[in-house]
Amino acid sequence: MDAHAPTSRARLTEAAARLFQVKGYHGTSVAEVLAEAGLPKGSLYHHFPQGKADLARAAAALASDMMRDIVGAAFEPAESPGHGVARLCEKFARLFERQPHWRACPVQALLDGPLDRMSAEAHLQAWLAATAAHLDRLGDPAPDARARRLWTLLIGAWTMARAADDPGALRAVPAMMESADA
Amino acid sequence: MDAHAPTSRARLTEAAARLFQVKGYHGTSVAEVLAEAGLPKGSLYHHFPQGKADLARAAAALASDMMRDIVGAAFEPAESPGHGVARLCEKFARLFERQPHWRACPVQALLDGPLDRMSAEAHLQAWLAATAAHLDRLGDPAPDARARRLWTLLIGAWTMARAADDPGALRAVPAMMESADA
Repeated sequence: MDAHAPTSRARLTEAAARLFQVKGYHGTSVAEVLAEAGLPKGSLYHHFPQGKADLARAAAALASDMMRDIVGAAFEPAESPGHGVARLCEKFARLFERQPHWRACPVQALLDGPLDRMSAEAHLQAWLAATAAHLDRLGDPAPDARARRLWTLLIGAWTMARAADDPGALRAVPAMMESADA
Repeated sequence: MDAHAPTSRARLTEAAARLFQVKGYHGTSVAEVLAEAGLPKGSLYHHFPQGKADLARAAAALASDMMRDIVGAAFEPAESPGHGVARLCEKFARLFERQPHWRACPVQALLDGPLDRMSAEAHLQAWLAATAAHLDRLGDPAPDARARRLWTLLIGAWTMARAADDPGALRAVPAMMESADA
């Protein structure tokens, strides 16, 4: 057993998640992931026997766990459903500001992988369920519908923020959640 | 003068728009565009001296014009702002059904090009302005805000529809436009 194995695996996964987010799955080579992780070629196939597609699944799972942590951090201290929504949108806006080169929102990044639509859908459903559970706990009368509307707006707003190179679209989401057509 | 020039240029542009939409800009080679258009190698640099990046701009302009046509076709026969919104969402859902392999919504596809963010933003602003002008004509009291909310939802819903492999998220947008948080 290689005592360093878990660390190398984590380094490869983190490097892949970072590069796929910035350059897309198809725009990232295995050589770049290895260089970013500072590891030799053999280490990839040791940890990920199926290579890049295998690595993409691990990177997507890492990105998805990160997203669930963000949902938890936004909603756990919230005092009302609207407060949690506002906190989550602000966290997305700050994430966008810190990561100006991300080419796609986290869901898009999952879909941009090796055509693994079903795993992207499973991750998205997990975020929707986590958000709806928090909304329910905070007394929301229609937590599933609100969670779905919130995530639809957040995903669209991420793309708009990227086009504008400005997180304003993400900060506009709470007001959009409170608006309705006559 | 080559009498066939406009036709070859249009064939290359249409082939590129189709392939970029399905495989992404980085996942599509110039050779594939030529094969799809059924044209020899020399024709690309004849019509697009700067090669693939040049072609991407023409393909984005074509896709953007198509989107403005869709907005016009949705809103011109509409009897109210809500009717126009419902017609546009249904057109998006049918577009999704006919093009199940599109990897990204039209805006994402523009952003996935040669990092030409400013031109993606200009196209998006043109769609927002066209939508707001129709809403205004139909008596909407806040056409700019409604157009922005509608497009944010449509872009997010396209990604959700792709993850689910089902256009239901696009057909849910009109109800989301009519919902508001308490």
